[in-house]
Amino acid sequence: MTDTLHNVLKTLESNRDRILDELIQLASIPSVSTDPAHAGDITAAATWVGNALEAAGPFAVRTIPTAHNPVVYAEWLGAPGKPTALIYGHYDVQPADPLEKWHSPPFTPTVRDGRLFARGVSDDKGPMLIPIKVAQAFFRTAGALPINIKCLFEGEEEIGSPSLDAFIRENRAMLAADVVLSADGAMWRINEPSLTVASRGLAGLELTLRAAKKDLHSGRHGGAVANPLNAMARLISSLHDDRGRVAVAGFYDRVLELTGKERADIAALPFNDIDYLAQIGAPETFGEAGYTTLERQWTRPTLDINGMWGGYEGPGSKTVIPSEAHAKITCRLVPDQDPDEIGVLVAKHLETHKPAGTTLEVTYGDHGARPYAIPSDHFALRAAGEALKEVYGVDPLVVRMGGTVPISELFKRHMNLETVFFSFSTADEDYHAPNEFFRVHRLGEGLSAWARCLDLLGRDR
Amino acid sequence: MTDTLHNVLKTLESNRDRILDELIQLASIPSVSTDPAHAGDITAAATWVGNALEAAGPFAVRTIPTAHNPVVYAEWLGAPGKPTALIYGHYDVQPADPLEKWHSPPFTPTVRDGRLFARGVSDDKGPMLIPIKVAQAFFRTAGALPINIKCLFEGEEEIGSPSLDAFIRENRAMLAADVVLSADGAMWRINEPSLTVASRGLAGLELTLRAAKKDLHSGRHGGAVANPLNAMARLISSLHDDRGRVAVAGFYDRVLELTGKERADIAALPFNDIDYLAQIGAPETFGEAGYTTLERQWTRPTLDINGMWGGYEGPGSKTVIPSEAHAKITCRLVPDQDPDEIGVLVAKHLETHKPAGTTLEVTYGDHGARPYAIPSDHFALRAAGEALKEVYGVDPLVVRMGGTVPISELFKRHMNLETVFFSFSTADEDYHAPNEFFRVHRLGEGLSAWARCLDLLGRDR
Repeated sequence: MTDTLHNVLKTLESNRDRILDELIQLASIPSVSTDPAHAGDITAAATWVGNALEAAGPFAVRTIPTAHNPVVYAEWLGAPGKPTALIYGHYDVQPADPLEKWHSPPFTPTVRDGRLFARGVSDDKGPMLIPIKVAQAFFRTAGALPINIKCLFEGEEEIGSPSLDAFIRENRAMLAADVVLSADGAMWRINEPSLTVASRGLAGLELTLRAAKKDLHSGRHGGAVANPLNAMARLISSLHDDRGRVAVAGFYDRVLELTGKERADIAALPFNDIDYLAQIGAPETFGEAGYTTLERQWTRPTLDINGMWGGYEGPGSKTVIPSEAHAKITCRLVPDQDPDEIGVLVAKHLETHKPAGTTLEVTYGDHGARPYAIPSDHFALRAAGEALKEVYGVDPLVVRMGGTVPISELFKRHMNLETVFFSFSTADEDYHAPNEFFRVHRLGEGLSAWARCLDLLGRDR
Repeated sequence: MTDTLHNVLKTLESNRDRILDELIQLASIPSVSTDPAHAGDITAAATWVGNALEAAGPFAVRTIPTAHNPVVYAEWLGAPGKPTALIYGHYDVQPADPLEKWHSPPFTPTVRDGRLFARGVSDDKGPMLIPIKVAQAFFRTAGALPINIKCLFEGEEEIGSPSLDAFIRENRAMLAADVVLSADGAMWRINEPSLTVASRGLAGLELTLRAAKKDLHSGRHGGAVANPLNAMARLISSLHDDRGRVAVAGFYDRVLELTGKERADIAALPFNDIDYLAQIGAPETFGEAGYTTLERQWTRPTLDINGMWGGYEGPGSKTVIPSEAHAKITCRLVPDQDPDEIGVLVAKHLETHKPAGTTLEVTYGDHGARPYAIPSDHFALRAAGEALKEVYGVDPLVVRMGGTVPISELFKRHMNLETVFFSFSTADEDYHAPNEFFRVHRLGEGLSAWARCLDLLGRDR
C-alpha cells in the first residue's frame, strides 16, 4: 500500500462521524422527485451536493439545468495518462408514504442499532456521498486524485431519469471517460461483498377501464352494465397463466435462456428460500414455474401490478359501481427484451382482452429501460473486485440485479461505456419502503473500498 | 263510487293548494339525519308531522324516542271488522350538498314549471304527507276512515334506519296489521303508473390479500413472491365465468327462475337498452348471459366489486410490490337467496381460490338484507292496482326494484307482513342529488289514489 493510500484511509477513518453528520444533513432534505410539491427541496439537495463537491477540492463544479431537475456535474482532470472514471449517483429520493408506517419521521434521520433511518439514505444519498468524501481525502492528503474523475449526480432517478438520455447524448464530449463507476445500485448481501454484472430492464404502462359516465348505484344498475372493477380484475388476471408465466403473446420471444453453467453458478450462491421468506415475511415463494427463486429474480422477466384502484376505499360499505378503474403495470426485462416492444405487446394484449362493456385507455410509462450486462473480464470490474477483497478479505460474489439501473444501458448505448456498480447499500435496506435505512458500518467500508479502487485504477495497467 | 269517496275526492281537490302549502312548510325544515348539527330540525320535523296527524282527526298520536331519532306513531282503530293498514314513511332527508348546484335554496321550497324543488320533497315528505291529508279528508267528510290505520313515520331512513329493526321487534303488538302501505319508494316512470312487487337483497364482504410483510421493490423481488395485486385480480376474476355468471359454488342454488309469463311481462315493459345506455352514458350493456337487461337488474343476483385498492395510486410510477391488496364486495340477492348463506359461500370460494403465495382475510359486512317479493295476488296489491287504474285510466306496470328496501324485509321477518309500495314520487326526481323535486300534479294524483285505495280496502273482501 502506498503512503498516500494509507494516509487517505486514515483520514477517512478519523472523519467517519463527521461524514455521517453530513449524510444526516443531506438526508434531511425531502428531495422527492415524484412530487412537484418538493421542487424546492430538489433545488436544495442539488445545491447541497454542489457545495459538498466544491468543499472536496479543486473540482470544477457546475449545476446544469435539464427539462426537469438539475444535474450536479464536477470534474478534475489533473491525472494525465491515467484513466478517467465517470462517477454516477442521484440526490433525489422516493416518496415516503405510507407515512404512518415509519418508526421515526422519514426526513428526520435517526440512528438506531447501528442503522441510519431516513428516506433516501440507502438509495442513494449514503452511497453517493462516499466517493465525494474519498475525493476530498485524496485532495487533502495528496493534493490530487489517482485518476481523472467526472461526477454526474442527477435528481431524476426515482422518476426514471427522463432527462438523462438527452443529457448524455448532448454532452458526450464533456462526459468522455473510460468507465462509469456507479454509486447507485445495491450489494446483494450484508455479509458477503458482491459485484453485480447484470440488471433487468423496465417497461411501464398505466390503464383505465371505464363503463358508465358516472358512478352508478349497484342496486338500481347492478347486473345491467359492466363494473370496471370486476372488469379490471378480469383483464389483469388475463396477463398471467395458471403457472405464473406472463401470458402476453411474444413476451418471451427475445429472452436469452440461461446456459447450464449460468444456472449452476447461480445455484452455487449462498441463497435459500427459507431464509429469504423469513427475511421478507412471506408465506411461500411464487413465480414462473420451472425456475428457482434467484433465477426468477435475476434472469426472468416479470409483469407486476404496482397499483390498482377504483370505487370506495373508506370504512364500511358503499354500494357503488364506479365509473372507472385504474392500474399501473411494470415489467422487468432481461436481455434481449426491448422496453418499447414489450410496452406495445402488453398494450396489444390489453386491447385484445378488453372486457365486454368497457372502454380502455392505455398510456405508456415515459421511462423504459433496457436490460444490461457487463463483460466479466472488464478492467474496472477487476479493480472493484480487488478493492472489495482487500476490505472484506474474501472474493466478492458475482451476482445479478433484479432491479433496473437504466444508466448502465444509457452509457452503453450513447458512449459505449461499461458500468461498474460500486454501491455500499445492501438490498435489504427497505429503499422504496417505509423505514429505509443505511448501515453505519457500510459507510466506513465504502469509504475504504472506494479509496482502494481509485488507487488501483490509478496504477499502471 | 260511494258518496263518501266522491266527497272525499272533492274535498281533496279543492284543498290541493292548501296541501301544497303544507308540504312547503314541512320541506322548509332541514331535517337532515346524517348531520348531528340538524338534530333540532329533526325534532322540529317530528313535531310538525305529529301536529299534522293531530290536526287530521281523532288519531292517537305519540312521538316515541329511539336510540337515534323519534318515531312518530299514530293509530285510529275505529273500523272493527275492516283490515288494518300500517302506513310507513320517513320525515328525515338526505344532506343537500353540493349546495352550489341547487338552482334555488334546498330548504326554500320553490315551484317552477309544475315542480316543487326542495330537499326531501320527493323522498319522502311529499309522498308521506299524502296519506295524512287523505285521512283528514275522510275524517272531515265521513267522521271515520274506511279501514283501521296505524302510521309509523321514522326519522332515520337516510342513515339506514338503525333503530327500526329493534323498534318493530319490540312493538309487534302495537304495530299488528294486515298489510304495510309504504309511502316511501318511487314509481318507475313519469308517464306510466307502476307497482313494485319485488326488491333485491344484499350481502357484503371485504377481503385483504397479503404476501410479504412489507412493501417490496419490484425489481429486487419481482418474480420471487406473490404480488397481492396480481393475486387480487386473479381471485376476483375467479368470481365470475366468461359469460358474466357468478362462479361461486351454490350461489344460484336458491334462485327462483322466472316463469315464462314473468319473462314475457318484463319483456312487454316500455324499456330499451339504447335509451338506457344513453341515460347512463355506457358503451354497451353487460351482465349474465341469457337474460335481458331488465331481467338482470331486477331478477338476477349479482356480485359486484364496490372498491378495490392497493399499491401506488399517485401520479407517475412507483415500482412497488405492495404488502397487501383490498377489495369490497356486495352481492344483490333475489328470492330465495339468504344473505348470510351467500356471504359464507362467497367467503368459501375466496378461501378455495386463494392464489398461491398469499394469505387471505375475509370480513363479513354488518348489514345483509333479504330479497323481497309480494305475492302477485295479495289483496292490498290488487286494491292499489285498481286505485291506480281509476286515477290513470290504465293498468299499472308491474315492476321490480334492483335495489334493496330493507323495511319490507323487516316487516316480513318480524311480523310476517307484506308491503305494498304506494309512493307518488318517481325515480327521476333527483332525490339524493341536487335540485330534488316533486311533480305538483303527482300530489293530486297521489291524494286521489290513496283515497280510492283506502276505500277499496274498506269494502268487503
